[in-house]
Amino acid sequence: MPIEVEYRFPVGVDAQKQAQVIALGQTVGTWDASFAHRESSFLAHKAEVVEVRTSDSDGSSLATIRFPASNVEGDIASLLTMIFGKYSMAGPAKVMAIRLPEGYGQHPKFGITGMRSLLDTPSRPLVMAIYKPALGLSAADHAQILSQVARAGLDIIKDDEIMGNLAVAPTLERLKACRPVIEAAQQQNGRSLLYAVNVTGRADRLLTQARQLVAAGANALLLNVLSYGFSVLEALAADPEISVPIFAHPALAGAWCGAPDHGFSYSAVLGTLFSYAGADAVLYPAHYGSLPFEAEEEFRIRDALRSRNGFPVPSAGIHPGVVPKAIADYGQDVILNAGTGIMDHPDGPAAGVRAFFEALDAAEPGQSFELSQVPEGPLRRALEKWGTP
Amino acid sequence: MPIEVEYRFPVGVDAQKQAQVIALGQTVGTWDASFAHRESSFLAHKAEVVEVRTSDSDGSSLATIRFPASNVEGDIASLLTMIFGKYSMAGPAKVMAIRLPEGYGQHPKFGITGMRSLLDTPSRPLVMAIYKPALGLSAADHAQILSQVARAGLDIIKDDEIMGNLAVAPTLERLKACRPVIEAAQQQNGRSLLYAVNVTGRADRLLTQARQLVAAGANALLLNVLSYGFSVLEALAADPEISVPIFAHPALAGAWCGAPDHGFSYSAVLGTLFSYAGADAVLYPAHYGSLPFEAEEEFRIRDALRSRNGFPVPSAGIHPGVVPKAIADYGQDVILNAGTGIMDHPDGPAAGVRAFFEALDAAEPGQSFELSQVPEGPLRRALEKWGTP
Repeated sequence: MPIEVEYRFPVGVDAQKQAQVIALGQTVGTWDASFAHRESSFLAHKAEVVEVRTSDSDGSSLATIRFPASNVEGDIASLLTMIFGKYSMAGPAKVMAIRLPEGYGQHPKFGITGMRSLLDTPSRPLVMAIYKPALGLSAADHAQILSQVARAGLDIIKDDEIMGNLAVAPTLERLKACRPVIEAAQQQNGRSLLYAVNVTGRADRLLTQARQLVAAGANALLLNVLSYGFSVLEALAADPEISVPIFAHPALAGAWCGAPDHGFSYSAVLGTLFSYAGADAVLYPAHYGSLPFEAEEEFRIRDALRSRNGFPVPSAGIHPGVVPKAIADYGQDVILNAGTGIMDHPDGPAAGVRAFFEALDAAEPGQSFELSQVPEGPLRRALEKWGTP
Repeated sequence: MPIEVEYRFPVGVDAQKQAQVIALGQTVGTWDASFAHRESSFLAHKAEVVEVRTSDSDGSSLATIRFPASNVEGDIASLLTMIFGKYSMAGPAKVMAIRLPEGYGQHPKFGITGMRSLLDTPSRPLVMAIYKPALGLSAADHAQILSQVARAGLDIIKDDEIMGNLAVAPTLERLKACRPVIEAAQQQNGRSLLYAVNVTGRADRLLTQARQLVAAGANALLLNVLSYGFSVLEALAADPEISVPIFAHPALAGAWCGAPDHGFSYSAVLGTLFSYAGADAVLYPAHYGSLPFEAEEEFRIRDALRSRNGFPVPSAGIHPGVVPKAIADYGQDVILNAGTGIMDHPDGPAAGVRAFFEALDAAEPGQSFELSQVPEGPLRRALEKWGTP
């Protein structure tokens, strides 16, 4: 099966011509009579323009180009270089969709089914928190925060993505401080609590650090994929020593995907590429959250992830009031990820977690909570603070 | 010394407010009374808005924000996550400039001075070619092409960036086929010929492959930095076994830098970030080449690279006719990199190389060649084909 890519060109661009430029320029290039004897080899690597359609509404065009899978190495980086390497600098064009052969890339080691099994929670949505504030907490502060949310039954916590291996709270020290809390939670709740530790550093050190963290008891990892590189995610996903789920963070995705006529669609990057690079769970903005995001793109990401068993993690501005919307959009296979929406609960982080579980118990899909119908307690306090959208 | 970043916001954005959102949201976040005892730690990590200026001409604003260097790990990836990770998804904003402490990041192992020493060419511009056509040539074809350009005294050749470790011409086989040609050229010309071999693959395999290639005689490497990740370039640059110059290719840079109001300026990425990640030489489009590119950005890249001893490699659409412009813009410390501008010379690749050396001998900076004044020979034939811009 070949690789198919959809490129969108804004009105005014000769899409037929540009599609041919891509099909030739991003594969074989030109050749003259001195290479006539190699023509069959060139033709075997040349891409093919399948279709160019122009939209009646805005005059933009969508070109579908089919590339031979033998042009790339089955990974994301060589794919990126081929489909948009040099051409990305040629003028306005946006990669809207990438369709890869089923066997392409990495499969997540855990994904939805594996993480449900790890957490012994076969069906309900999972609740995830983020250590907040971001920079300035010590390792002991992390443990102290974790003990509060663990007691309330939290499923997963992650480092803030900007918390690296910093003097204020070195990565291994954060893990070591939190391990006893994780073990106590396992004792108390009878199921695991995952802590996705942020792995950072130069590629060689990052891979070593990831193994050291897992050896020291890390039961999940967090990676800023676009900051470190797809090749790093793939290396972690393929490494048998990394026997824990990998949470992929979308940091920097706006630089790749935020522009109307350049770069990539969010769903191509955070949905297709992240899942084919082996991420077990992928964070991305929810359309009702604190970042501007289109519902259609959110759902394309959700579907792309699930098609590879990847866990969708809508994020940014999530609080208990959005739970009815979230379960209407996602059903049960979703991780609800809240930073301040848990940590800044008026009654503290434990109440923040309880408010989510109360919301999950009480919510009817798509039916906003009626404040007057909600009994006194953590959920009501959360709704009073953050509203019932 | 702190880290300073300039963000540009288009007209209509409340730049003062957004600058504060970045200074707080990309560092500490918010905290409440329960963390009052940590306030001094938070304040030590918080960024500071230095200045916000609004342009009279287009109403855009430029905000300068100063981040503590203690927030990051001295590398590019943690820097990217901090300065633009989550915020990149917040709406239109473009990172225009990044100013880093002198000691930040990696220094190139070779750079301008080291590569001149390797090549025993103390002062003139270097001439570089690219294997063309891109995909479809065998390893033996590569050697055959190289023998032609080597005979003519070429300084450097590189793989096409889309040529990875493919069945049609596996990377190690390309190198092995070309090594005897490189050795013969050394004998004939009395100086080295560098072949920048494209290193590819999952991060772990790429680092291993790079060492194997160097051990097998590779005397330069090529990396598609944005496809594989800055963390991979840094690992190569820091590795003592990688005792050869690293050429950094700008593949995918248009997805990061091509949009008017999103992502990064080309100079911030290809100039500042590439050189602080340790690239010895960086390729990027010349403003008079085949890709649309602003002269001002080109010169900012040139200056950013040279400030770290990095070799500028203006590329894409370079042919002998542009040499007078190039030396006006660059003087001697430049690598003139041509693909078809050498390989498609009417009299073949060797004549393509000779045309460049003839152009370098004959050119007056900034004075276009007068076809009628150029004697019969490779340069004249090149000018007849590609013109005298």
